[in-house]
Amino acid sequence: MTSAAAPLAIVILAAGKGTRMKSDLHKVLHPVAGRPMLEHLLASAAELAPQRQVVVAGHGREQLEKALGGRAIIALQEPQLGTGHAVLQAREALRGFEGDVLILYGDVPFVRADTMQAMIQRLHGTEEPPIVVLGFEPEDPLQYGRIVADGDRITWMVEHKDATTEQRLVNLCNSGLMAVRSQDLFALLDRVGNENAQGEYYLTDIVNIASMDNRYCAVIVTNEADEVAGINSRGELAQAEARWQKRRREQAMVDGATLIAPETVWFAWDTKLGRDVTIEPNVVFGPGVTVADDVSIHAFSHLEGATIESGVSVGPYARLRPGALLKKGSRVGNFVEIKKAVLGEGAKANHLTYLGDAEVGRDANIGAGTITCNYDGYFKHQTVIGDRAFIGSNSALIAPVRIGTDAIVAAGSAVSRDVADGELRLVRAEQLVKPGWADSFHDAMKKKKADKPG
Amino acid sequence: MTSAAAPLAIVILAAGKGTRMKSDLHKVLHPVAGRPMLEHLLASAAELAPQRQVVVAGHGREQLEKALGGRAIIALQEPQLGTGHAVLQAREALRGFEGDVLILYGDVPFVRADTMQAMIQRLHGTEEPPIVVLGFEPEDPLQYGRIVADGDRITWMVEHKDATTEQRLVNLCNSGLMAVRSQDLFALLDRVGNENAQGEYYLTDIVNIASMDNRYCAVIVTNEADEVAGINSRGELAQAEARWQKRRREQAMVDGATLIAPETVWFAWDTKLGRDVTIEPNVVFGPGVTVADDVSIHAFSHLEGATIESGVSVGPYARLRPGALLKKGSRVGNFVEIKKAVLGEGAKANHLTYLGDAEVGRDANIGAGTITCNYDGYFKHQTVIGDRAFIGSNSALIAPVRIGTDAIVAAGSAVSRDVADGELRLVRAEQLVKPGWADSFHDAMKKKKADKPG
Amino acid sequence: MTSAAAPLAIVILAAGKGTRMKSDLHKVLHPVAGRPMLEHLLASAAELAPQRQVVVAGHGREQLEKALGGRAIIALQEPQLGTGHAVLQAREALRGFEGDVLILYGDVPFVRADTMQAMIQRLHGTEEPPIVVLGFEPEDPLQYGRIVADGDRITWMVEHKDATTEQRLVNLCNSGLMAVRSQDLFALLDRVGNENAQGEYYLTDIVNIASMDNRYCAVIVTNEADEVAGINSRGELAQAEARWQKRRREQAMVDGATLIAPETVWFAWDTKLGRDVTIEPNVVFGPGVTVADDVSIHAFSHLEGATIESGVSVGPYARLRPGALLKKGSRVGNFVEIKKAVLGEGAKANHLTYLGDAEVGRDANIGAGTITCNYDGYFKHQTVIGDRAFIGSNSALIAPVRIGTDAIVAAGSAVSRDVADGELRLVRAEQLVKPGWADSFHDAMKKKKADKPG
Repeated sequence: MTSAAAPLAIVILAAGKGTRMKSDLHKVLHPVAGRPMLEHLLASAAELAPQRQVVVAGHGREQLEKALGGRAIIALQEPQLGTGHAVLQAREALRGFEGDVLILYGDVPFVRADTMQAMIQRLHGTEEPPIVVLGFEPEDPLQYGRIVADGDRITWMVEHKDATTEQRLVNLCNSGLMAVRSQDLFALLDRVGNENAQGEYYLTDIVNIASMDNRYCAVIVTNEADEVAGINSRGELAQAEARWQKRRREQAMVDGATLIAPETVWFAWDTKLGRDVTIEPNVVFGPGVTVADDVSIHAFSHLEGATIESGVSVGPYARLRPGALLKKGSRVGNFVEIKKAVLGEGAKANHLTYLGDAEVGRDANIGAGTITCNYDGYFKHQTVIGDRAFIGSNSALIAPVRIGTDAIVAAGSAVSRDVADGELRLVRAEQLVKPGWADSFHDAMKKKKADKPG
Repeated sequence: MTSAAAPLAIVILAAGKGTRMKSDLHKVLHPVAGRPMLEHLLASAAELAPQRQVVVAGHGREQLEKALGGRAIIALQEPQLGTGHAVLQAREALRGFEGDVLILYGDVPFVRADTMQAMIQRLHGTEEPPIVVLGFEPEDPLQYGRIVADGDRITWMVEHKDATTEQRLVNLCNSGLMAVRSQDLFALLDRVGNENAQGEYYLTDIVNIASMDNRYCAVIVTNEADEVAGINSRGELAQAEARWQKRRREQAMVDGATLIAPETVWFAWDTKLGRDVTIEPNVVFGPGVTVADDVSIHAFSHLEGATIESGVSVGPYARLRPGALLKKGSRVGNFVEIKKAVLGEGAKANHLTYLGDAEVGRDANIGAGTITCNYDGYFKHQTVIGDRAFIGSNSALIAPVRIGTDAIVAAGSAVSRDVADGELRLVRAEQLVKPGWADSFHDAMKKKKADKPG
Repeated sequence: MTSAAAPLAIVILAAGKGTRMKSDLHKVLHPVAGRPMLEHLLASAAELAPQRQVVVAGHGREQLEKALGGRAIIALQEPQLGTGHAVLQAREALRGFEGDVLILYGDVPFVRADTMQAMIQRLHGTEEPPIVVLGFEPEDPLQYGRIVADGDRITWMVEHKDATTEQRLVNLCNSGLMAVRSQDLFALLDRVGNENAQGEYYLTDIVNIASMDNRYCAVIVTNEADEVAGINSRGELAQAEARWQKRRREQAMVDGATLIAPETVWFAWDTKLGRDVTIEPNVVFGPGVTVADDVSIHAFSHLEGATIESGVSVGPYARLRPGALLKKGSRVGNFVEIKKAVLGEGAKANHLTYLGDAEVGRDANIGAGTITCNYDGYFKHQTVIGDRAFIGSNSALIAPVRIGTDAIVAAGSAVSRDVADGELRLVRAEQLVKPGWADSFHDAMKKKKADKPG
């Protein structure tokens, strides 16, 4: 996307209390598709290459500072006296800036970059409006402020509660998003008063003030009302998640993945899927997963930060954690957890296994119930398993330890020393036999059980 | 809720065959949200503090007796000759009772207590009606009996099949629920005949008989048609479950829980959730679960009878069974089962573990693949693990056994005797090495495999 | 179903590229309910006992040949010049055949056998039409070819894009399916030209040619538009799966199974369920599963090729693989995998277990964390466990091995030799105690940790 002619600043309003979320976490930091709302918004805005970014914060300012880590200037709004007042707090942060200002909302995180771009471009189009407002046409416009317009020229903005019966018939609603030229923004804001029921300074008023100056303010209408949906409660958060997932699932199918039950697959914002990938019902992707072509992901799998090469089979009930790398044609079966571990080409870990901080060679076979003991309570240690090595079932590999190429670990062994190439390691006590012992035990216990009261 | 002025008796009709359920279990004992229909109904009725409870039973009487355990008088209806006949069977059980009688249906389990209360109160309101009928206005009234009313005075009740074209235009339908004064109930019932197509005695007829006596029978209309939905098939059972879950999920979000995919979380009737609880997709709550604030429940978890304190992380793939108590900040990871066990503050059991009949101390670390061997085939025994103890991976703790404070169990150990505080216990055979053995084995097996036919 | 009077041949068109699937797998081999589309279609057609089956293939011919394994004659269409041209390629395969020809589409797999039958029967009904076309009335007929008919006599078939405004008002659409008498089929096809925008030979044209000959072509209309839905993309594949699952779930409930959350249970095409089966949320059935009466299948279970007798409890988190046989009253609990194994009556394998290539006796108890070590890297071996045997937790049974009746294997044992009836087998090293070792270790490690930089 090419940036507009003039320099761009974005101002994100995020000072609201978010009371309806009932949360200690700042509203705009609640995640959708595994990524905070605010990050979704910043990522879209980033496509327009803004020169300055301002976030207007109030409650929970520290959380925002930590989340942003210097990527935006934080302007403090305290107390909160309305949207117009909020934007005014960005004056200091925008000092010296000349260009276009795009006003966004931290709780309206899914505005598309091309919508933002269209708003900016309109600023520089016919009549060169000082303000461009983003309008939308909801199915039920009841509670929204209305935009009365003649063509794309706004004649009046009105809050729903102040609207006349006639104005309420208007279907064009105000999303709140605006693009404003920097030289106009604060000049207009300084003229906004708070003589209204709430005693607040409304950003919307700058449009009416400019209109009364006989300036041409323009409206752009999005054809996708969902992109301006605000998220003010956990219910709306769930709805936003659902809309996001629906779009992503459809895209996955268009791109050549089979989703047997699309409504039961949850993607993260950055999931990458190859062609001819089959995903069974009930699969959850956390962030950071890349899946190559011809991979089968079976039911009840949970993947996060994992890289899966072609021809791999995962699950059912596989848990892949960050740093899992499954090489070509390898297999991870049921009740298996992989963390910071490489599974070599064609290698198998099919049942009840934990591989952590490990490197498994090509065509190695990890028996059922194998555990890499990677933690001693203080430090993590590495396990290295050679090509074609065979780890017998129910073995514990006590890291740091190295199992050689073609080596065999006997079932039930707890291996604490390296095993050389082609060597067998057996850690097993004598088979102690007590003939008849079980029979005597059964007799004694049955008696004891019979003697027990109740 | 304050009880009405007069004493109250409830009569629950539950004599139907429930043929469409195709089940050996009595229809009213089929559960919704983990609790039998009948119990949902009794719990709502209990808010009105009834002095007498009668359940009219026919088929499956023994199952009802066992389920009720003396909490209600069971009146037998045999054969089943209609709803009027069913209520008549309660005559003996209500002998000596004077007050209001509320007639409910075992397969209409979700009538709200305040709806019941409103019916009772109307009995004592204007005109003091002898009968109050609960009406509803369904989207599609096709098959229901109609209530013809003038204001709230019922002029006629008519079965759908007997209704005239004009009557069918009436949208007000009969739920079957009634409140009747005890002195009127049996007097009116005695006058009901069975001269109709089915040869049955209809409860509805008492309204028409009273109306013909020129008495004022009143209708109360619920604004939530779902509360009078009957459950007659597994399909309707699933619909009732879906409605219940939808309401509960919405309430959970309103109360401050994040449900990433609300439609995939199943609550039980008594689930208690704190604030800032995050629930990933696909979590099932059985009865008896309490979750404090700031808890994360990851995907594919299954919880039953568990108490979870604040700051705990559960799952993915955690199974908590009755008696699990997870103390503050503890963690239960994947493929872990906890039964009748306490996990101390900050303690961790992250992978492939079974903790049953156990007590785990503060900050203890339970390694992957740890099993408490709590059962000897006859009795269950207890495992006690001290504060900060470290249980190495793949260990078997053979109960009864006690692991001391700060003690360490080496990986792969089967511990059958107590471990003292600060002690190391290692149960491991010598590392037996056979250099070259694996190579020879591979050669021999490859040859054998090549020799095999087919 | 009785076959029609005349011999029957079916011709299945399957030469399309399936570009929108974006798949290396032939479109008609993509599965729905665990069974390739083509197999669904062949199974329905088989109810009419066709004497000859022809599949017209183009792209991916080898995959079709392999999938069909000689069950149908494959006719090659190369290049692909339209549906009429496709059917013409079956001329050789149908040489010598006299009777009825039913033309089907590999990507329209859910046409019901009785619909096919009705088409064939109409061929031999009033007016003895040379062609019977299957029509349908979609909710939105926009893109479909229309059938203009007078009663059931077709007067004209028209492609949507060639249709007049008046013709587009017709709601009767062409499914493409036809029944044609063999003596008419190729005679008519020889007269079809390709003078149209696409330069293709349309099968539809044979109807118009016959009509112009003043012959009576008939239309039959399905009342279930879904059965002629074509599957051309992964999205449509998912929709077909969803429709199939919805029907199957409803049938399961009608038959007396409780599905707590029907929308989360996935059946395979051949799943068999008894009465009073309860299925918790999130259960996936692969092919080949039979479930008897009074079985509980708990959440997050995955079943494939398994036979489950009455009174069994499965899961949560049970994975049953092909060859699992759970006898009466047995129990399989969480994180347990069963493959090619019999679990005897009343036997239990409740936690974290892998049973492969095994036979478990009646009332045996398989402790948590038990692994049958059935694979040596080259061959699979058998484990046999006697009646009432008790396998202590965390044991490895190294096959081939036999555990006797009433025998006990001590917890944590790796058993490599047979255990006799009533015998105890203990494979455990000495309990090595190092008093104070853990305390010293903790001190050393805390120091090391403190010394580590940042």
